[in-house]
Amino acid sequence: MNQKAVVLLSGGLDSTTVLAKAMAEGYEVYALSFDYGQRHDVELEAARLIARNMGVKGHKVIPIDLRSLGGSALTDDTINLPTKASEGIPATYVPARNTVFLSIALGWAEVLGAHSIFIGVSAVDYSGYPDCRPEFISAFERLANLATRMGVEGQAVTVQAPLINLTKAATVNLGISLGVDYSVTVSCYQASKSGEACGTCDSCRLRKRGFEQAGVADPTRYVTG
Amino acid sequence: MNQKAVVLLSGGLDSTTVLAKAMAEGYEVYALSFDYGQRHDVELEAARLIARNMGVKGHKVIPIDLRSLGGSALTDDTINLPTKASEGIPATYVPARNTVFLSIALGWAEVLGAHSIFIGVSAVDYSGYPDCRPEFISAFERLANLATRMGVEGQAVTVQAPLINLTKAATVNLGISLGVDYSVTVSCYQASKSGEACGTCDSCRLRKRGFEQAGVADPTRYVTG
Repeated sequence: MNQKAVVLLSGGLDSTTVLAKAMAEGYEVYALSFDYGQRHDVELEAARLIARNMGVKGHKVIPIDLRSLGGSALTDDTINLPTKASEGIPATYVPARNTVFLSIALGWAEVLGAHSIFIGVSAVDYSGYPDCRPEFISAFERLANLATRMGVEGQAVTVQAPLINLTKAATVNLGISLGVDYSVTVSCYQASKSGEACGTCDSCRLRKRGFEQAGVADPTRYVTG
Repeated sequence: MNQKAVVLLSGGLDSTTVLAKAMAEGYEVYALSFDYGQRHDVELEAARLIARNMGVKGHKVIPIDLRSLGGSALTDDTINLPTKASEGIPATYVPARNTVFLSIALGWAEVLGAHSIFIGVSAVDYSGYPDCRPEFISAFERLANLATRMGVEGQAVTVQAPLINLTKAATVNLGISLGVDYSVTVSCYQASKSGEACGTCDSCRLRKRGFEQAGVADPTRYVTG
């Protein structure tokens, strides 16, 4: 029987690539998405479609209202989305988001008997979020093994971040080699209800440049007009 | 201005004692509870009452459906509650629960500008849950400082577990000295809708013995008949 893995799936470019990689490595994949009050909740439609198209074993979308905490341009409509690169951690940083997501993934992993959790963070072409850095991932892995029955009983949990050292272009090339259809992924922080990207937000800019640098035609549907 | 603190408040004996301690230390307290699909959700009524009676600055009850993950006697009705002490980690252990709760507390702390998170875990008279041990708390604190903007910017977050080395009796005595009214707290895993305790579950047994050993009259309302 294949080893099980929980894969965090936002519906964007990075997590979809990671999902493809986990499938290619032969894991029995359980995809996990969050309806956390994000502006761009159309990404969840993308996540559902991707999970179905790629034949995962299970997919859950867990509601967790981070909007009730606020503190980010993604979860508080009174905070504007930045349209150009800034110094330091941008306004789109959601306090403790990856910690919350990994924690719930850990709970599901333990119930499933999965010893691997995959997350699509990168510390190269990224927005400067603290919870995308390798030291964060290692610290979470250490915590996970102290927090759980499986950790205590000697069945280690690993947190795999296969994109951590990849540029966006390298991620695109990896995905293309694995047959990922990026046209269905949604990265834009203010995507339209039908999933069209703005082309100007931080996430769009990183994605666009990734396709350019990879020499791959950008299949993103941008808002026209 | 007082320092702010987020206090995890289940509505039980331990977390209420911790809340009283944080208030006594002069923190401006923001209490955080979770509607996670627990059997004993009457504890949330207790939490609301306690937060109001004790005059916290804010109280949030965040829904997070751990029942959709299952894996515990507290979140899956097909798993029976144990009625006597067992070897190892009991069936009431909820996978990754304290990791999830602390993560969301961390997010709120960051939005509030609070640098302290209080949690009522103890590693003495406890159920053997891995996420109640001091090494878990230290690992979470380390993670918290890597995960967040405040950590990165040098404003450390501390996770305070003032009961970690206390027996249940010592906790009761601490609470009594701080004026806690334990009659409104609910610890029972299968409390009735009006908050009456069964007297036989693991949580009831620990609590009962705590009052006995402290030499304090037990104000718990038990189911009669």
